[in-house]
Amino acid sequence: MTGERDLETYLHRQIPLSAAMQVSVVTASSDEIVLSAPLEPNINHKHTVFGGSASTLGILAAWSIVHVRLLEAGLPCEVVIQSNRMDYDRPIEGSFIARGFIATPPSWPMFLRTLERKGRARIEAESELMCEHVMVGRFSGRFVAFVRPKS
Amino acid sequence: MTGERDLETYLHRQIPLSAAMQVSVVTASSDEIVLSAPLEPNINHKHTVFGGSASTLGILAAWSIVHVRLLEAGLPCEVVIQSNRMDYDRPIEGSFIARGFIATPPSWPMFLRTLERKGRARIEAESELMCEHVMVGRFSGRFVAFVRPKS
Repeated sequence: MTGERDLETYLHRQIPLSAAMQVSVVTASSDEIVLSAPLEPNINHKHTVFGGSASTLGILAAWSIVHVRLLEAGLPCEVVIQSNRMDYDRPIEGSFIARGFIATPPSWPMFLRTLERKGRARIEAESELMCEHVMVGRFSGRFVAFVRPKS
Repeated sequence: MTGERDLETYLHRQIPLSAAMQVSVVTASSDEIVLSAPLEPNINHKHTVFGGSASTLGILAAWSIVHVRLLEAGLPCEVVIQSNRMDYDRPIEGSFIARGFIATPPSWPMFLRTLERKGRARIEAESELMCEHVMVGRFSGRFVAFVRPKS
């Protein structure tokens, strides 16, 4: 499950809010995840994107980069969010994207080693939100992964 | 627009994501806002509440307390979120509520005075997320209000 279509199907099936937001997966690679959402289902009283939708796209992109990289590493895990910060830099006036990436790439090998040793590890992942090539928001989250018991 | 029914209608109409999440307004007073949402439309791959839904209910409750208090003060404003932090303390395994309140009540009169003088002011509002009387998450947000020009 590393392609765009697979990730999109997974998100829509497992997280109905992502379907309600009409989230689509533009890029799903081990370097970055790019998710997109239209304005209409995410609009607010000011006819811009609702903060909850912006924050949620940030969460989904950051969660997805951890999820996809773990699958590629052959280490299927449960990945859950522990905390986050979100800055809403500008009003978002149309379709918007969130680009998820690992905040500090050198932290990844240590994260994997801890996961393999302890069955549980923490990692920071970030998302940049853009609308028409302008940065409109910044998300930073801490995620915990748990190795799934082999069945 | 101070009653529960009015706030719920306003949220569902102006922010379709709140309708998709089946948010209902339990309490809408100047001391606190209590919003509730069921598990089903907000579920994730682990059959608990998706972090994006938890964070969004926190945003809505904190935004609503500022909005309702400004209406009661006779100062209709646009209220927008500037930044937030969210801690996901425990998995949420069923219907959940967010209780929105002003983080530091003595900051309110100063906030109103600044709004009246400058037409714009910032305030911190918080939400506590609970499921079956257990605290499951904490949201803290910074909001900016702009006085609407009289028409």
